[in-house]
Amino acid sequence: MPNILDDDALDLLFREARTHNGWTDRPVTDVELEDIYALARMGPTSANCSPARFVFVRAQEGKEKLRPALSSGNLDKTMTAPVTVIAAYDAAFYDKLPVLFPHGDARSWFTSSATLAEETAFRNASLQAGYLILAARARGLDAGPMSGFDKTKVDEAFFTGTTWKSNFLINLGHGDRSKLFDRLPRLSFEEACILA
Amino acid sequence: MPNILDDDALDLLFREARTHNGWTDRPVTDVELEDIYALARMGPTSANCSPARFVFVRAQEGKEKLRPALSSGNLDKTMTAPVTVIAAYDAAFYDKLPVLFPHGDARSWFTSSATLAEETAFRNASLQAGYLILAARARGLDAGPMSGFDKTKVDEAFFTGTTWKSNFLINLGHGDRSKLFDRLPRLSFEEACILA
Repeated sequence: MPNILDDDALDLLFREARTHNGWTDRPVTDVELEDIYALARMGPTSANCSPARFVFVRAQEGKEKLRPALSSGNLDKTMTAPVTVIAAYDAAFYDKLPVLFPHGDARSWFTSSATLAEETAFRNASLQAGYLILAARARGLDAGPMSGFDKTKVDEAFFTGTTWKSNFLINLGHGDRSKLFDRLPRLSFEEACILA
Repeated sequence: MPNILDDDALDLLFREARTHNGWTDRPVTDVELEDIYALARMGPTSANCSPARFVFVRAQEGKEKLRPALSSGNLDKTMTAPVTVIAAYDAAFYDKLPVLFPHGDARSWFTSSATLAEETAFRNASLQAGYLILAARARGLDAGPMSGFDKTKVDEAFFTGTTWKSNFLINLGHGDRSKLFDRLPRLSFEEACILA
């Protein structure tokens, strides 16, 4: 194992990767989706709680179920993306803890506090969705995450009768770099960080 | 740029990386911390809102300010870690939007809804902390993220008089693999994912 990634790898993951708005026709395969989940699931979560759930929407029928929930600015790029991931979480994630964290009764930490359960699900599912974005890039896919949609409509269309809740959406495919916007600025180390 | 990472790189980031509980004496330099922030900040956030803030606690004085907030299970590993990052967010992150997202009046989306502002800060700061964990691994550091601490105490000790709020903690350094626990299971694709 190398103990550090080289510049090409860092470019692929972080420095040259972009949020894509246009897509080539090249499809994304089942094997690619299984691969990126297999990578993302290895990332750390609190007490291994692993609350994230992912719906990989590819079929036209699934895209049509998404359509009414999309904001106008996210509509075209989402309808044309090879895959749109509903990055979600299971609000009852703690029911898996006897398997995921067998050292103690971690389930009771969350069944005794709905606030802690919701906060833990949201934080860790967001972390895991971040791992999925970087896993997709690591496997040569481009990602376009989005928060601009109606969560209630997505939950009604996809998760009625379940404990799953949508968090945000991620388009996946091979991006068309000619449709990229200019890169936006980021905060400097001095603006965002403190050495203490 | 390669269009895919090799197995060694995927092992480093995801498959062989572990949450560490013990640390070697090898320090973490300012340049390493600046490098991993420079990578993590390039990851995507909603409307480029970039709410995450990071306090890199290395000095004994800073560690002592953390000590009363730590749960017993997280105490020793945190006091001995070369760096403990307070992964935080700026609740008034929207004040940077005129620079970070100059296309429109994005600031007003959040000043008009405290609920949307809080949800956006929490989601995106968690995503960015996930990018920081993977950036640390990419640069050859080990990470140990933790939620088991008293956020109110950390916020009082570090963020009084500011709009920053703690989210979770991340120990950074070079892990002592002899102190690792056994790897815990993860959910299968069938348990956590749907192809739609």
